[in-house]
Amino acid sequence: MDTPSLRLPAGMRDFAPRAAAARRRIAETLLGVFEAWGYARVITPAFEYEEVLGLGLGSAGRAAALKFVEPSSGRVVALRPDITPQIARLIATRFRDETGPVRLCYEGTVLRLEKGARSQRELIHAGVELAGVTAPEGDAEVIALGAAALEAAGLDLAKFELTIDLGHLGLMREVLAALHLSDAASVAMRAAIAKRDRAAMEEILRSSRGTAGSSAAPEAVARFVCALPELSGDVRVLDLAARQAPNPRIRKAIADLKEIVKAVASRPFPARLHVDLAEVRGFDYYTGVRFQAFVSGAAEPVLQGGRYDDLLGRYGRANPAVGFAIDVESAAGALEAPDAAADADRQPGLPGVAAVLVVGQIDRAVSLARDLRAKGRRAAPLLVPMSAPEIAAYAARWGYREVIRVGQRVGQEAGQEVVQPVTNASNTRNTGKTGKKGH
Amino acid sequence: MDTPSLRLPAGMRDFAPRAAAARRRIAETLLGVFEAWGYARVITPAFEYEEVLGLGLGSAGRAAALKFVEPSSGRVVALRPDITPQIARLIATRFRDETGPVRLCYEGTVLRLEKGARSQRELIHAGVELAGVTAPEGDAEVIALGAAALEAAGLDLAKFELTIDLGHLGLMREVLAALHLSDAASVAMRAAIAKRDRAAMEEILRSSRGTAGSSAAPEAVARFVCALPELSGDVRVLDLAARQAPNPRIRKAIADLKEIVKAVASRPFPARLHVDLAEVRGFDYYTGVRFQAFVSGAAEPVLQGGRYDDLLGRYGRANPAVGFAIDVESAAGALEAPDAAADADRQPGLPGVAAVLVVGQIDRAVSLARDLRAKGRRAAPLLVPMSAPEIAAYAARWGYREVIRVGQRVGQEAGQEVVQPVTNASNTRNTGKTGKKGH
Repeated sequence: MDTPSLRLPAGMRDFAPRAAAARRRIAETLLGVFEAWGYARVITPAFEYEEVLGLGLGSAGRAAALKFVEPSSGRVVALRPDITPQIARLIATRFRDETGPVRLCYEGTVLRLEKGARSQRELIHAGVELAGVTAPEGDAEVIALGAAALEAAGLDLAKFELTIDLGHLGLMREVLAALHLSDAASVAMRAAIAKRDRAAMEEILRSSRGTAGSSAAPEAVARFVCALPELSGDVRVLDLAARQAPNPRIRKAIADLKEIVKAVASRPFPARLHVDLAEVRGFDYYTGVRFQAFVSGAAEPVLQGGRYDDLLGRYGRANPAVGFAIDVESAAGALEAPDAAADADRQPGLPGVAAVLVVGQIDRAVSLARDLRAKGRRAAPLLVPMSAPEIAAYAARWGYREVIRVGQRVGQEAGQEVVQPVTNASNTRNTGKTGKKGH
Repeated sequence: MDTPSLRLPAGMRDFAPRAAAARRRIAETLLGVFEAWGYARVITPAFEYEEVLGLGLGSAGRAAALKFVEPSSGRVVALRPDITPQIARLIATRFRDETGPVRLCYEGTVLRLEKGARSQRELIHAGVELAGVTAPEGDAEVIALGAAALEAAGLDLAKFELTIDLGHLGLMREVLAALHLSDAASVAMRAAIAKRDRAAMEEILRSSRGTAGSSAAPEAVARFVCALPELSGDVRVLDLAARQAPNPRIRKAIADLKEIVKAVASRPFPARLHVDLAEVRGFDYYTGVRFQAFVSGAAEPVLQGGRYDDLLGRYGRANPAVGFAIDVESAAGALEAPDAAADADRQPGLPGVAAVLVVGQIDRAVSLARDLRAKGRRAAPLLVPMSAPEIAAYAARWGYREVIRVGQRVGQEAGQEVVQPVTNASNTRNTGKTGKKGH
């Protein structure tokens, strides 16, 4: 039992072997897919000057960062709450002369002021950025890559109802611009759209008409904005929206999203597509398509991304970019059955990490373990005296699939006796647990 | 060119693809070896309450930590300068009932107040802890594992003169205890031993004899401590030391180190062993053997470790433990030729990350890239219009080993034309560099 004085700060945690292995496996699978798609891995620092990182964080991201005064400089630094702004900075500086597509990927820890997925403040993010491509094919590539990576990690459509929600914040900007609202009314309108509160939306339009005079919103735009909450569903929603589009710029944004959907749908795609034109989250960050991936078993999105053509410009070199970050903790949470997380904490062992436990005379056990490793096996000697039942329990706890007992040295040839395996490969988890439904 | 306002805090840096790939490769190789030896990977948090982390940090480690007030609790937290105390806490709490050996490994970022290897304050550490084994075989296993992991990462004896320096801080404690010095004189003596300053050592002994009266150091102990600076060299130093040992406790510490050396030397060992009995660094942390690995090309040790049988007890459950951490940045620095680091920064591309660049009509290029990936290749479509020379330069910059041009669709069958490879596999680095000796 932990003494109270050994508590970790709220939202921070350790991952014992089983839980750590699950997260490493997910992260490494994701990165493997990113690299297969031509994305080169980069590493960025854990903290930066707040004013530099803040350039690329939206206002929400800026507020979410843990900050402190860095002693050697006396300046405020922020522990990154997001890696995207760092990649934007990297592309805008180190790759500023690149004329072709820049494809980068990353994996790392982010830290937040507030708790995120599964009440944690420290999250593992794995993501990609594609810069230099304006064509809808760029958006489609990134969306398809996100779905393919999640599928490879085990979050497939069949078992986890993998769904990609598509919105378009370029569209939202055009709609709000066409309404000619005051800044305050515009913020209120975004909140009303987010809540899908049609009464509030109509009220804002009415008051605005009273005060704004000749610059009031054209009737067609007002009708369109009030229809947004209903423009949610499968991709046919886009045809409906296109017919109601009140001006050419709004029509163009819808056409852009249709092109992206067409490019995504033109190839095998392991997720359901869901369109939601009332999506406003990330308004001050994204400029075009905005997407999130949801799976059954995770309340939070497992992936968030979109197009932010303004972002790199904040770092001194304008360049269109689209990307996403996958929250490894949300993905791990979805993959674990609800009661598996607690099990992962209770069980120390990591199945398969060390396949063979060698017991008996120490120098012979050490030597045999080495020989087994040379043949590609995982192997460790016991090193401490234990009774046979203790050995069996220890091997089961730590996931050793085989126990080999070495005998006394009998001349030059090794006397080596194979004891019965303590557990078999498919059965290493069944230690001290009562029967319980699998997942 | 970076604008000055985009600078990173001193000691923090980005790693572009080549440099990031080198570090990832090293870290993954090390972890693969640790796991093969039966060590289960765990993940610990980036920061903890300072008073908790501080329990397990020596005074030097405690001073090295970056600290800040965590807003939600109002308590001081420390960004981990070392992962070892976290593993100690984990073993002492979550694995407190384990009676057999606990073998854990980790990889993660540590942050320091001062610059470490290669002027960096953010370092990647990969390490192991073995708890529950007092036998010299435990020390020997960890030392052998460290050498094997460094060898696997490419830092072998033949090319890098991989050397393990062995000291013994249990021996040093016994020697200092036998001298009956005041606390202040004891600290001064440790400093004199560290500097191998025999005159200062003799002066401390003389003044101490003047003041301490009957509790003064026996002559044999005084002679032994003055001989320590010379007790440095190959393992035969231990026989010399054993003959001079002035009391049974000192004799026992030397015998312990001899047992460890014997166990290490009894099997193939890919490093040179060097004994240095005047080693005092980490005095308030280590209780037994203390080892460091050095390679040509790195000023700092690439590995530091030892036995700290007191450490877990500070977290509420006494348990002997031995472990090490490898500084991935030092290892990467040694593996890179002196001018390669700058190259890694200049060159954006990552050789081999995406083997095939597919150019031509976008939807056909996207489709072919997908087919190539399905066959296990790495592939990306170009997505933007570029001239043939631009394509060749882009492919070389980013390390694409082959460029395939897809034609217009000609019916149901794909018209697919293979253009000459821009570079070949063994030649992707030779872009815009003048002839220069390889490494």
